[in-house]
Amino acid sequence: MTTPRTPYLRVDVGRLDANLTRVADRAASAGVALRPHAKTHKSVEVARRQLEAGAVGLTVATIGEAEVFVDGGCFDVFVAYPLWVDATAAARLRSLAERAVVAIGVDSVAGAEQAAGLLAGSGVEVLVEVDCGQRRTGVLPAGAGTVALAAARAGLGVRGVFTFPGHSYAPDALASAAVDEATALAEAATSVRAVGLDVRVLSGGSTPSLAASDLDVLTELRPGVYAFGDAQQWELGVLDPRDVALTCRATVVSHAGGRLVLDAGSKALGADRASYATGWGRLPAYDAARVVLLSEHHAVVDLAGAELPALGSVVDLVPNHVCAAVNLHDTLWAERDGALVAWTVAARGRNS
Amino acid sequence: MTTPRTPYLRVDVGRLDANLTRVADRAASAGVALRPHAKTHKSVEVARRQLEAGAVGLTVATIGEAEVFVDGGCFDVFVAYPLWVDATAAARLRSLAERAVVAIGVDSVAGAEQAAGLLAGSGVEVLVEVDCGQRRTGVLPAGAGTVALAAARAGLGVRGVFTFPGHSYAPDALASAAVDEATALAEAATSVRAVGLDVRVLSGGSTPSLAASDLDVLTELRPGVYAFGDAQQWELGVLDPRDVALTCRATVVSHAGGRLVLDAGSKALGADRASYATGWGRLPAYDAARVVLLSEHHAVVDLAGAELPALGSVVDLVPNHVCAAVNLHDTLWAERDGALVAWTVAARGRNS
Repeated sequence: MTTPRTPYLRVDVGRLDANLTRVADRAASAGVALRPHAKTHKSVEVARRQLEAGAVGLTVATIGEAEVFVDGGCFDVFVAYPLWVDATAAARLRSLAERAVVAIGVDSVAGAEQAAGLLAGSGVEVLVEVDCGQRRTGVLPAGAGTVALAAARAGLGVRGVFTFPGHSYAPDALASAAVDEATALAEAATSVRAVGLDVRVLSGGSTPSLAASDLDVLTELRPGVYAFGDAQQWELGVLDPRDVALTCRATVVSHAGGRLVLDAGSKALGADRASYATGWGRLPAYDAARVVLLSEHHAVVDLAGAELPALGSVVDLVPNHVCAAVNLHDTLWAERDGALVAWTVAARGRNS
Repeated sequence: MTTPRTPYLRVDVGRLDANLTRVADRAASAGVALRPHAKTHKSVEVARRQLEAGAVGLTVATIGEAEVFVDGGCFDVFVAYPLWVDATAAARLRSLAERAVVAIGVDSVAGAEQAAGLLAGSGVEVLVEVDCGQRRTGVLPAGAGTVALAAARAGLGVRGVFTFPGHSYAPDALASAAVDEATALAEAATSVRAVGLDVRVLSGGSTPSLAASDLDVLTELRPGVYAFGDAQQWELGVLDPRDVALTCRATVVSHAGGRLVLDAGSKALGADRASYATGWGRLPAYDAARVVLLSEHHAVVDLAGAELPALGSVVDLVPNHVCAAVNLHDTLWAERDGALVAWTVAARGRNS
């Protein structure tokens, strides 16, 4: 058996499959499509398991991610991002559309017309992005029809509308974010239908808000983190820590000053720390412990009085944000029945 | 000329060389050795420029980084980290020591004896890490002699003592951190000499504290960030923003809600945000602007009233922490006289 060097990412395949099945079953029983966001795992092996569990296709953030997953055998991809489509991007999207069903996001008339000018006739469809409260990208719901009409008039097929209820990432916000999500998508669909266009898809979903998403309104869910879970989900209370399927295995390198110092830092875990986070990651074996200082190659842990594990021993950490952690590694080490198999993070670094 | 896709990292080679020369000149004029930390750039091209400018060798954080730079032609490397040396690590260090001058950090008797048991006779030397105030790793200064003696008795050569004044990363802390650095190193050296061992090197240095480091005490400086600079140095006031040599070039993808949204997110810039930071990065062309929201592929910028640049146009961002940003990319695009050359981030992801 290969023994990777710490710090490395370890996937519990049994937990992963259970997470995939649980969400797939919820989508299936509600009659909505599941299109998981592959930015979380960036790995063809996980994508295949999602498709086998019933996903209709994948969500990605970039054309580069789409290329990796189409090459890996997923033939239905949605780039859920308001791409600015220049000639190079258009050529890549056209190439993908020859092999797969491809859709992209738009959130402006100018963006829709720019995309249409280079993609008309390619088969690439668009979904209009709607802002349901995160205040990042997306038009306000009442403006969706205007963007959709611009796309359609310029020659692009309009599939529907989508939103990301990113404001669900806060304590006690998941239920209200899910209400915002459904309200915004319904209003946006009305706006698009009012300009005479069909709306086949109302797409939403985030891992925190997933259980509360209104599946009488949404026709598609795009969660990402649910596959692995992470310390953010744990601390938001939407995930049982026993369901966390990815950990970073680290070695104890120092007891300086009575501290526990591990060799997994921000270059292995990512530096994400949301305002509600209690530290830079969590330790499954030490519920009360917190990562109180994170450098590039050090995690300093307050063990809350527990005995320090010996120098040279190994400890598992749960990253705050698993999407960021995965993107720092070339390999996920998948563990089943005590054996480790290397899964390539094929879309690592595919930012464009 | 190659045109990389946004978001990509761009190096201004003229500014880089000026930064390297400025610090090399300061070290040379004070008669201290400069051993830059290569974790910042992870690139053989930058390392060569540092060595050509007078560096005596490189500092690295991991054995994997050491391997990359020895392969790349640097024959003097110091792993400034309290490694736990197991059999695999020892074999790699022995292999390196056949081709290069190699030193590693230790901060405990147990760590020193563990390393010595596997490295004695290899030529690998140790430096004892001292905590001068960051409270991360390192013994207290008075304890350095005990660790040094353990290493020497077990068969390892002791080169000296080192510290990282990481607590210089705070407003108005650089001068006091530099005092702490010199005080701790001097006391540690006394402690080592008291057990009958020679101290050839007293090594310190961080980019914020560099100008204040006491070069009557220190014999070696190990700054890293100084090569490129970043928004942290800018906001700490230790760097003129006109000296920042690395930016992330991004495309304007959305004007949703009157916001400026760029396609460079935490997967291109890193998510580091120190307590003193005013946002998730800075924009050289808009001094008053702040990145107010950062997602994996979005930077939402408050332009402080300036006119929004057009959709599809490109904007430069300065990452908060350049070491983290570089580690997310496979390539640095080095610009000189308007032409771009690809420099490989050869040590990207080398966490072990």
